[in-house]
Amino acid sequence: MFITFEGLDLCGKTTQAEILIQKLKNSGFDITFVREPGGTRISELIRNILLDSQNKEMDPITELFLFSASRAQLVREVIIPSLNSGKIVICDRFYDSTLAYQGYGRGIEIEKIKIINELASSGLVPDLTFLIDIPVEEIYRRRKEKYGDLDRMENSGLEFYKRVKHGYLEIAKSSDRFIIIDGMKKIDEISEQIWYIVFEKLKMKAK
Amino acid sequence: MFITFEGLDLCGKTTQAEILIQKLKNSGFDITFVREPGGTRISELIRNILLDSQNKEMDPITELFLFSASRAQLVREVIIPSLNSGKIVICDRFYDSTLAYQGYGRGIEIEKIKIINELASSGLVPDLTFLIDIPVEEIYRRRKEKYGDLDRMENSGLEFYKRVKHGYLEIAKSSDRFIIIDGMKKIDEISEQIWYIVFEKLKMKAK
Repeated sequence: MFITFEGLDLCGKTTQAEILIQKLKNSGFDITFVREPGGTRISELIRNILLDSQNKEMDPITELFLFSASRAQLVREVIIPSLNSGKIVICDRFYDSTLAYQGYGRGIEIEKIKIINELASSGLVPDLTFLIDIPVEEIYRRRKEKYGDLDRMENSGLEFYKRVKHGYLEIAKSSDRFIIIDGMKKIDEISEQIWYIVFEKLKMKAK
Repeated sequence: MFITFEGLDLCGKTTQAEILIQKLKNSGFDITFVREPGGTRISELIRNILLDSQNKEMDPITELFLFSASRAQLVREVIIPSLNSGKIVICDRFYDSTLAYQGYGRGIEIEKIKIINELASSGLVPDLTFLIDIPVEEIYRRRKEKYGDLDRMENSGLEFYKRVKHGYLEIAKSSDRFIIIDGMKKIDEISEQIWYIVFEKLKMKAK
């Protein structure tokens, strides 16, 4: 089973992924957890370029290809082998992020990104995608609370995040693998909702 | 005017590009010379990943996206601004390399690479492309003559290079911007042939 977590920066994806992993491990499942961009030696080298706040001049198309390069390596080196060996793979961001951020956010043609996403992921599609939805203003509130300095990726404006949020909600309409979660709820409430859905899916798969 | 040089490794591209640049400079033209992958700060960071012989596990799709990322940055940061300011841009490899090496050589779908190439280059097409054609065996002869150690990109086999050579010749059929040059001729003979063609093209453009 392949589960992805999506949403705006600081929506709580990583926290929820970690809670789910703990619960699955406690239930005896073998888990592979990866985050994008990164997760392999080569993908981490690419991640360094993407997140280096010095690289302000980076073009959105360059960014799109770097995310895709990092993903292509991760899919072939980690995700597919893990799935083939029967593990549950949990991914903090996957290609829906590219469609939402580089497509809806930066304005690169959606249809072209879909072709690139398919190539990068070898046609792999998640079984479940949790989209944790928060108001755009909440990013800024949480950021202030959490960080002093910002990395390059998070250095974008309010209008950008509004387009990304709209994009995510559009993408979620396209497939029933998406579960939209209200990210303003309490952490425990969200994690129980997620656990219930994953548990049901695992029961279905086991049948 | 935008001129690209293409061909197998060690075919003599770089030497010929440098001779042409010298001749154009002597005639009073402003030149921008770039090589792929590389040519901008970000593109050079990507180049380091691509050419690092440690990165043996790199997937062909990762490689495709890294070349495209490097190119996207180069096109927007250097090539288009240079052309807009009236300079002649000369590029040692451009997207035909991606089609020949990653497409014909590594077997990635040609039609998908064309879409990626177009996105990476913002639809920019060279005015002239010199394809310097040599027999595949000649690569090995010249390599032995020139290098001890090989970088990752040149660490591939004979069959691979045969597919790339075939690919280049196929691509060259698709557009009359291509001039196929016999790379087994003497350096001076080749450079005079190239100079004659560029000179004619410049006269045509000036009219």
